Amino acid sequence: MRKKAKYNVAVVGVGAVGVEMLRVLKQRNFPIGNLKVLARSAREITVDGQTYHVDQISAEAFKGIDIALFAGTEGEKGAAVTYAPEAVKCGAVVIDNGADFRMEADVPLVVPEVNPKDVKKCKARGIIANPNCSTIQMVVALAPIHKLSKIKKVIVSTYQAASGAGSKAVEELYHQTKAALDNQSFKPEALAQRIAFNLFPHIGGAGDADFTTEEWKMVKETHKIMHAPKMKISATTVRVPVAIGHSESIYIETQKPLDIADVKKALSAAPGIVVIDDIKNGQYPMPIDACGRDEVFVGRIRKDPLDEKGLWLWVVADNLRKGAASNAVQIAEVLIKK
Amino acid sequence: MRKKAKYNVAVVGVGAVGVEMLRVLKQRNFPIGNLKVLARSAREITVDGQTYHVDQISAEAFKGIDIALFAGTEGEKGAAVTYAPEAVKCGAVVIDNGADFRMEADVPLVVPEVNPKDVKKCKARGIIANPNCSTIQMVVALAPIHKLSKIKKVIVSTYQAASGAGSKAVEELYHQTKAALDNQSFKPEALAQRIAFNLFPHIGGAGDADFTTEEWKMVKETHKIMHAPKMKISATTVRVPVAIGHSESIYIETQKPLDIADVKKALSAAPGIVVIDDIKNGQYPMPIDACGRDEVFVGRIRKDPLDEKGLWLWVVADNLRKGAASNAVQIAEVLIKK
Repeated sequence: MRKKAKYNVAVVGVGAVGVEMLRVLKQRNFPIGNLKVLARSAREITVDGQTYHVDQISAEAFKGIDIALFAGTEGEKGAAVTYAPEAVKCGAVVIDNGADFRMEADVPLVVPEVNPKDVKKCKARGIIANPNCSTIQMVVALAPIHKLSKIKKVIVSTYQAASGAGSKAVEELYHQTKAALDNQSFKPEALAQRIAFNLFPHIGGAGDADFTTEEWKMVKETHKIMHAPKMKISATTVRVPVAIGHSESIYIETQKPLDIADVKKALSAAPGIVVIDDIKNGQYPMPIDACGRDEVFVGRIRKDPLDEKGLWLWVVADNLRKGAASNAVQIAEVLIKK
Repeated sequence: MRKKAKYNVAVVGVGAVGVEMLRVLKQRNFPIGNLKVLARSAREITVDGQTYHVDQISAEAFKGIDIALFAGTEGEKGAAVTYAPEAVKCGAVVIDNGADFRMEADVPLVVPEVNPKDVKKCKARGIIANPNCSTIQMVVALAPIHKLSKIKKVIVSTYQAASGAGSKAVEELYHQTKAALDNQSFKPEALAQRIAFNLFPHIGGAGDADFTTEEWKMVKETHKIMHAPKMKISATTVRVPVAIGHSESIYIETQKPLDIADVKKALSAAPGIVVIDDIKNGQYPMPIDACGRDEVFVGRIRKDPLDEKGLWLWVVADNLRKGAASNAVQIAEVLIKK
């Protein structure tokens, strides 16, 4: 991207992720010239006390935009399939948070701490894809270990917050929990099942081999981001009654046995990672700590006493920030540095 | 144990598990002659509308008792260390839910669906140990698969309910959640960390190699129950904001590749297991389904597409019932059948 003092930015979508994008752009002092906020219908919204005019989305709205951040909904109903190519025609680079373009060969899928150089591949289509929330925080934690010894296998079980399903799911978590405490009846609407004081292993739709689409994203996106198509990765993804912050229990098998001190050192030195790891004093990452932060938090770092090539990590991140909005803005930061 | 029409039973402890033992004895129509309920102090308690007199525990209280079910607290402060030997001296067989005797060589550790024959080893000490909640539901699900092909490795991440830490932890979950919804402040007391809309990978104390004592229980108890001391088992145990019902995400590596249809068939035919497994129609076990039930619920049964010897299971059970009280009463049922 041509070096400028300021860039004209469009944010498309004003749901949970779109709002977070506006917040992150401001907090990280992204050098913005004009900011356009686009959605299906025009309105005004207020984020942290600041009012934003939302314009109705159209192909023409992208004229003069340098970077278009698409927050949103995937598939035919989403804006990206229709408007990302229009934005590119207007000369913008699109950074898309949805899943529509992620696995296309000529669209880079980027986590700045892991594969920043892939950003330049956006020349082909004008689009950079932002990975899935559960993938992003995992690869940030895997990358430093993969440098110490090739990772052969990853077994991951997730604990995913309601906000991963949008802001209506968070409202449902709170309303339903209040109703449950008051012995009132309720019906799941935004989420597949009751979420109040309950959890369920069902995120996304049903995919191949009875894995969910979310579970497949963690496999295929990790292969692409880490340039490791033969890494064995397998996931079970679970929705839990937490509002913000995904947690992941990750078991790793490396090619060579690693020294646990070296693993801790590599993780502590890695970009974008905060290590909190002292079980004796009750210190480990939790969703409440990660909320509102851009880093990936790693703890419970330990070697399997029964397998010298086995390692455990406990990885927590804010799914709306590092898992979505912040990663997208960080991609934009890489883009304007080049 | 000598065959009788009815047996004199003592229940020691009236916390979450003790109360559940009284409930389960009644619901399963255990052939009780006299029932004694013992605790640190005498009182009256009401369970499901029935009043029970609680006597103060003493060595003499076990006179005439055939079977003593210890519900309770582990370690020096618990009743089992002091009173289990006294109960045995009085001629009772002790079934202890605590961890004090579990790993002793001359005390059998029993899950009736898995190793019922070990019950007879109680002759040595007069004590049978009830395993840890998270172990019980796991071994019930592993056993039928281990018969199809030797299990080489088990990687498990748990989602454990507050009730595993006692009834005060359940009260804390509800009070704290209400306070969080009302924007009131609160401080964790019964649990190590905030539990309202949060979760944390810390159950039990810190043990060897930075694993928690709960994580070690899942390893060592499984070795003993399954008579498989060389099985590689590794666990991460996590407390979640659910009141009752532990869930486990279990990855298994078998010696031979298995046909997934055979695995499903074996699990469906196994004692004490209910299979709920249809992701396409949103069917899988959840804590709210398992609550109040004695079975172990298994779903999300699938083969790792990237490893022909890899299998996933999602296993849910009522931690107070199958994970504690019901398993203890089922041991007593085996005992009186012999």
